[in-house]
Formats: sequence, C-alpha cells, structure tokens
Amino acid sequence: MNTQTYTPPAVPWAELRNARNPQMTADGRLQHLLTLEGVSCDTLHHILNTAESFLSLSDHDVKKVPLLRGKSVFNIFFENSTRTRTTFEIAAKRLSADVVNLNIEASSTSKGETLLDTMDNLAAMHADMFVVRHNQSGAPYLMAQHLNRIDRKDIHIINAGDGRHAHPTQGLLDMLTIRHYKKDFTLLRVAIVGDILHSRVARSDIHALTTLGVPEVRVIGPQTLLPSGLAQMGVHVYHDMREGLRDVDVIIMLRLQKERMHGALLPSEAEYFAHYGLTTEKLAYARPDAIVMHPGPINRGVEIASDVADGSQAVILPQVSFGIAARMAVMAILAGGHGA
Amino acid sequence: MNTQTYTPPAVPWAELRNARNPQMTADGRLQHLLTLEGVSCDTLHHILNTAESFLSLSDHDVKKVPLLRGKSVFNIFFENSTRTRTTFEIAAKRLSADVVNLNIEASSTSKGETLLDTMDNLAAMHADMFVVRHNQSGAPYLMAQHLNRIDRKDIHIINAGDGRHAHPTQGLLDMLTIRHYKKDFTLLRVAIVGDILHSRVARSDIHALTTLGVPEVRVIGPQTLLPSGLAQMGVHVYHDMREGLRDVDVIIMLRLQKERMHGALLPSEAEYFAHYGLTTEKLAYARPDAIVMHPGPINRGVEIASDVADGSQAVILPQVSFGIAARMAVMAILAGGHGA
Amino acid sequence: MNTQTYTPPAVPWAELRNARNPQMTADGRLQHLLTLEGVSCDTLHHILNTAESFLSLSDHDVKKVPLLRGKSVFNIFFENSTRTRTTFEIAAKRLSADVVNLNIEASSTSKGETLLDTMDNLAAMHADMFVVRHNQSGAPYLMAQHLNRIDRKDIHIINAGDGRHAHPTQGLLDMLTIRHYKKDFTLLRVAIVGDILHSRVARSDIHALTTLGVPEVRVIGPQTLLPSGLAQMGVHVYHDMREGLRDVDVIIMLRLQKERMHGALLPSEAEYFAHYGLTTEKLAYARPDAIVMHPGPINRGVEIASDVADGSQAVILPQVSFGIAARMAVMAILAGGHGA
Repeated sequence: MNTQTYTPPAVPWAELRNARNPQMTADGRLQHLLTLEGVSCDTLHHILNTAESFLSLSDHDVKKVPLLRGKSVFNIFFENSTRTRTTFEIAAKRLSADVVNLNIEASSTSKGETLLDTMDNLAAMHADMFVVRHNQSGAPYLMAQHLNRIDRKDIHIINAGDGRHAHPTQGLLDMLTIRHYKKDFTLLRVAIVGDILHSRVARSDIHALTTLGVPEVRVIGPQTLLPSGLAQMGVHVYHDMREGLRDVDVIIMLRLQKERMHGALLPSEAEYFAHYGLTTEKLAYARPDAIVMHPGPINRGVEIASDVADGSQAVILPQVSFGIAARMAVMAILAGGHGA
Repeated sequence: MNTQTYTPPAVPWAELRNARNPQMTADGRLQHLLTLEGVSCDTLHHILNTAESFLSLSDHDVKKVPLLRGKSVFNIFFENSTRTRTTFEIAAKRLSADVVNLNIEASSTSKGETLLDTMDNLAAMHADMFVVRHNQSGAPYLMAQHLNRIDRKDIHIINAGDGRHAHPTQGLLDMLTIRHYKKDFTLLRVAIVGDILHSRVARSDIHALTTLGVPEVRVIGPQTLLPSGLAQMGVHVYHDMREGLRDVDVIIMLRLQKERMHGALLPSEAEYFAHYGLTTEKLAYARPDAIVMHPGPINRGVEIASDVADGSQAVILPQVSFGIAARMAVMAILAGGHGA
Repeated sequence: MNTQTYTPPAVPWAELRNARNPQMTADGRLQHLLTLEGVSCDTLHHILNTAESFLSLSDHDVKKVPLLRGKSVFNIFFENSTRTRTTFEIAAKRLSADVVNLNIEASSTSKGETLLDTMDNLAAMHADMFVVRHNQSGAPYLMAQHLNRIDRKDIHIINAGDGRHAHPTQGLLDMLTIRHYKKDFTLLRVAIVGDILHSRVARSDIHALTTLGVPEVRVIGPQTLLPSGLAQMGVHVYHDMREGLRDVDVIIMLRLQKERMHGALLPSEAEYFAHYGLTTEKLAYARPDAIVMHPGPINRGVEIASDVADGSQAVILPQVSFGIAARMAVMAILAGGHGA
C-alpha cells in the first residue's frame, strides 16, 4: 500500500458507533475527550468546577500552576486555526507543560506518511497529550482507538474540532459561560441560531445542554442549514427567528462559514442577515436578561449586528476567558491527576 | 459593517496628535511603549540603566531572571520579521515569561475579523503584553487607545515597528550602544545616513538623540529620501556624504529597502553605493574613533562596504546584543514592576 | 559584493579536509557535533552511555532535568523538517533550555543576508547552541569554523543534517538502538539497504559502525545508487538483496527520496520494491533475531512492506524514542558540562 499523497482515512462510522466510546476507560474514567455525547452530568459538572477553580488564577500575579510540569503537550493541527491553537497553548503553559506546535499539512503527511504512522512517531517521542484538530470527522476517534489498541494509556487525546462532528472544549466553555451567568441549567430556554448543519459547535452544545438538564433547547435556521434527526435529540426547530428567540435566556449565535455561500445552500449575506442576523430589534424578543454568545470570530453585519456584539448582553469576550479555564480543566483532569 | 477582507484602519493622525499620548498614564508612568517622541530624558536613562543591568546577565551561566514569571507575552506580527520577533522572544524568555507567537496574516484577519476584535480576543486570554509589528503607521496607537478605553491597564503594548512611523526599541538599543561606547551624549556629533524618508528607525533615533542632549544631529541622503520638516526637528541636512561625515562621532547607516528601488526614488544600487555607501575612504572623514552602526540586516556593497561592516569601527553586532537587553528593560519596566 | 539573492557558499571541501576537524578542541574535547567521522570509540560510548541515562527519564512523571536551564538553543532550519526539528525541540526542553525555532528560508536570507551574517547576528543574541539543518553539504562546517575563528567557544553547533554529507545524531540514535538490542558491536553483521549515494544517514552510520568495531558492514543497492570509494571505507557491496541480507543481525533500511525517481537513477517504485523493498520473504534470509531499522518516515510498499514495518522484528518506533535521548545526550555533553 503506497500513500504518496495523503488520503484521509474513510471513517468507519457504523463500527465506531457500535464500539464502546474510546474516550472512557473500562472503569468509567475519562481517558480522552473526543465528544460531549455520552459524558455524564456529574463528569460535566466536575470539569466545570475544575475550570472555575482556574478562573481565579488569572487574577494572580503568577498565573501558573505546576500540574503538568514536565509533561509534553503536542498541538497537532491538520487544519489551521491560530485562535484555537493559541488558547490550548496558553492553557498548557499555565499548567507548566512543555508545548510543541505541529502544523501537519506542511509536514510528514506531505512526505507520504499515514495519519497513524505520524501518531506512532509522536507517541514514541514520549508525548503525554495530543490536542488534535482535523477536517475529517472522526479522525481523533481513529487516533484514540489506535492508542488504546497499542496500549498507550499514558497518552491523552483532546479533540480540538473534527470536521462537522464535535468541538467538545468549545461546548464546555459555552456551558461554563452559561452556568456563570445563569446558575441553574434546569430553568433555561436556550436557542442556537444559524448554520446548524455544518456546526460542530452546535452538536457539542446540544449534547451538553441536554445532559445538564436544560428543559428547552431550540435551533433556529433555514431549512437548508438544519440537519435531520434534531427532533430525536429533543430539540425544537424554528425557521423564524423572532418566534424562536421569544423568551429565551441564552442565545448562541453560530459563525457563518462564508465558504458555504457560493453553494446553493445560502442566499446572499444581506438576505441571510435580514432573516437570521441578530439585531437589537430581534434580540428584544428574548428575555431582557438574555445573554448573547458566539464562538468567534464574529462576522459583523452577517450573523450579528455590531451594536449587539458590542452591547451589554453580549458575553462573547468572557467566553474566550472561560475557554482558557475550560481547556486547563480538561488537561488537568486527563493528565494532571485531577480525577474524573 | 462587513469586513470580509481585512482593510487596515485609516489612522486618524490629527486626532491622535491632539490626544494625550496614550503611552503615558495620567500620573506620568509608562503604560505602553509606542514611540520615543515625548519620552523624557530621565525615563530614557532609566530604561538604559535597567538595560545595562541585564547586559551582565548574558555572562552568567543561567541567563534568566524571574521578573515576568507567569506573565504571557504575545508577539503579534502583522508584518513578518523573524529577526525582530526572535529578539523579543528571547528577551521575554530570559525574563521567564510565557511567549506566544502569532503571525496574524495567516490567521483570524483572513477570516474577516477586525484588528480590534482580534485584540479584544487576545486580551480576553489574559495576556500581559502585546508586542506588535504592523505595516500601518499608528496601528499600535489604535490598539493602545482601545485598551485604555476598555480600561485594561493590565495589558502593555510595545511597538515593534509600525509603518514608517516608529521603532522605539531599535531607538533605545541604538542609544544604549552609543552610551556604551561614547559615554556622554552632550558631546557628540551623530550622522544618520540613507533613506530617512521611509525609516522608522531614523525617526526614533532622532527623537531620542535630541532628548538625550546630543548637540548636533545630522542626516545625510539624497533629496528624494529626506522628509520635509527636518529643520524643525533641529536636524542638520546634508546631501554630500563626505561633508556630512566630517568629524562625527557616531554614524548610523540605514538599511536600503530595495523594494524602493524600482520606483523613481532611487538610481541603481551601484550609483547609490557610489554616493551614499559607507566605504573606508568616506569613513576617514569622521573622527578616527567614530563608531559605525546599522540596524541590520546589512546589504553589503549597497549601503555599506564589506570591509567597513567587518572593520574595527563597526559595532553592528554589539547592537544586536544590546537589543536583547534593551527589550528586556522595556518589558521589565512595563510589566515587571521595574518602575518608571 | 552584493548578495541580493542568497547564493549558498561553495564549500571548499579540499581545504576543509586538510584542516583540523573543527568539531574538536585543541585538547580533544567535542566542541561541535558535525560528523561522526573521526569521533573516537570512547567518545561514542560516552555519548551512548549518557543517552542511556536519559532513557529512564521518560518513565518519570516529570521528564525534565535542569542541565541546560537558562541556555538558549536555536533550531536553525534552512531545510524544512518538522520531525527532526520536533525531536531537537523536545530534547532541549527536557533539558530545561529555552528553544527558539527559526525557519531561515522565510527570513533574513531572503532579505539578502549571507549565511555568516545571519550566524553572527544570532551569536550576538547570546545563543548557546545552534542546531542546523542545511541542504548544502558542509554548511555547518563553515559555521563552526567561523565561530572558532571569532573565538566564540561558548556556542556549540549540532549538525541536524547537511546535504548528502552527514546526519550525526541519526547515526548516534541508530547506534543506541543497535547497542540496546544487540549489546556487543564486535559480533555483528549490519546491512544498509537502498539509496546509499544520497544518504547522509548511511554515511554517518558507516562511520560509527566501523569505529565501534562492527566486523562486517554491508551496503545493498543498485549500482546507480552506490557511491564510489565504499571499499576503502571497509564496506562490502551487494547488488542482490537476498545475498546481502544473508545472516545479518541488523538491517538498516533507507528512505527512498521519491524526488530521485523522475531522474534516470531509478526505475519505477514497483520495480524498486521488487528488487530492494524489504518483504517477509527477503527478511527470512537474515538471522531470525535480526532487527529492522528505518530513519522514517517510511514509504510503505516502496522500500518496506507494511507487514515488516509493523512486524515483531521492526524497531522503527523505538528508534524515535532513542532519538530524543541521543539528542539530549549530545546537547548535555556539548553545553551542559557533561564531559567528553
């Protein structure tokens, strides 16, 4: 078998679905973080509590703790994302880890090495953690299964976004943000707005919100950008934004991937904004104390109006701060002996 | 407002000029380092003294001090410069800071994020210092004003070169070099040679030399490469190099930006070298103990002859060493509680 | 002399050959590591022993030692190699050094700076070690000679691969691997298979194996990929793989540089594999406990069959682990006061 050009592995989803979730050990501890699907309410709260304990750290003069001292964290990004890579890099350094950044496109896969060969090589360098972003859904699963198969329990994988599938640390930071501002998940109405179909953020958020007991999760978007099967996930579907936003406590705006634009999926930016852009006028349908979230980077005037993005209900920048704490928490729990 | 492609902000210079210099706090301390214009003689000497205290550090076996331990320094380079980025990276690491390098061209601005949105995001990651290089004059000013406006006094900006405007740490390392070799600024004749018009180094040097009491600052260059208004800055203008170098103590050669060549501004490289290249013959017009400086990288045979660059009067490499110390000093003063 | 575009220095090989090896000090200590040629058996074993002491470190919870604390290691890669750069980066960080990565193509040489000017600048930043990869044979020699000439004994160069010439740390990790599995070099038959002509790995391995007393070193490859002068190096040449592998204890497969393919030097990949690819069938000619090595990344189905690469005799991944330890050893010995 010759792999001159890197052909991404065809992910055997059916098989993966039937297999035990490779992120849990046999005795129920978290070995990797690949998805929030199936993560228990207790585990989610343990992660959020740990993250909260790191939040106060930022106010200290020395913002470091030695939990991962001497550990090596590899940021393996098959898909470029300076912002996400930076937050993981900062989180790892605040835990005193050594961080190595690898942009794999420019590297060995271009020399014809398979994904798993690359993995095996990095594992042989005594890595402790792989933070993986990949444009193929399921790639971190294959890597985790492989590590489990070769019995490398000392290496932990964090999925930093895989294709359309999951972005669990974004989901966690969103939950940390909601818990911070709204306290009790069981009293909330949460709306997720935009391109649900292509959004790994939406998928991770829905799993977490449902598990944490949010009684009403809504998605709002045009028919073409909504996946099937939402009803089975217990989610309410809206196509009209004013209707969907009525009386919600939390609004999660999704980023519009403009590269979708030039397909048939979307009308013009202006038309999209008219229907699904969050403006002051539409925001007024939500509860007056509703918070506005966005995973960033925002497209001003496309999915959100500037005055809303900069307004008093927006918590978009606090989300970034919570993101560092959430990533520190996951790293500390997986590799720093912080339980769960 | 939609910012699909990154359009650099139009800098409102008039407004900036009239505003209080955003690098000083109300009580006169240095909050950011954006320019040497307006920095007092006392403050300059305080920075140089601090830098000098770090110079000896390089002779130690362990070259680190813990002044910035736990602090996060972001090198935000909108314009590529490995050399300058490296000196800031080393300076920060010697102060025990965590360093994150961001090449912003390849990053979020390409996703349509504005400069200030990028800033806000990085600020939300609990950064302590932004080292900023930008090809737009004034960009670090906008960033500093924004930080002041949102009351983030915990974040300090160092201008690592903005357009044609300023390169204050280069100015400081030049002053450190001159003070090291010549001791007393008030006895000196200093000549700056070359493309003054496009040089942020020249501008920073002229401000610092004037403030530090150098009685005679000369600039030497062709009419097309000299800005207007030099006389008001107290600078003497020469077009003939031999005349301009006569009896000077310090010669600061500027780098010739070859990309200027293919305009009408400059004749051929050979002709430029004939008129303004520093040769042994021309150097002889200066004082016999004159030092020859250059911000690097040098173009041998264009602005400086090889035997002069490698000769006994050249202090071009010591400048590089002084550059690390000068950058450590600025960082320590801004964020390490080192006064000023 | 104008160096607008970077023209790599013509390496004066004859002169270099006649000069004293610049990697040794006058009193016989290792100042740089440029090649394994001429490194004594005692020194090789000292390096291997030091590496072995670091191997156990990887099992510890905190994998760091403070031998290079406060030292600055510059990874200067004129030729891209994420894998090799990463191993040096990890090795340096485990020794507690500060690491600065420089990709020089994208940097100052593109601004017209000569190799030695770049070097001088980095040296002026108080570097302690340069890890250099360059596509020109001899480039690290020029750099070492220059450092010796300007009397910068405080800076150590490690050759991380120069053209076709040498890759000494790969040679060392290969020796560490062989010693680990086979104990006594003086009882071994070792075969190196593939493109010997273009392989700096082969060259470094042959020097080390010979010095360490391996009685029979064989090379196997097509006539077009074998250099002349092998007999003088005490090496046995084979063109037939089955013949060459007969009864060997160690097989070192070389990576096929596919870019050689489209010359006249090589037939098709399939034909190459038929003749020189390592299959189970051919492996059976070697001793049953023979180990299979490869510097990586492997081309499955070109120079090695997948079942051999993943089989029980392959030690390709352990080589990667040994590589970290070997590089730590060289760094510790050169700059960490670890003797030799």
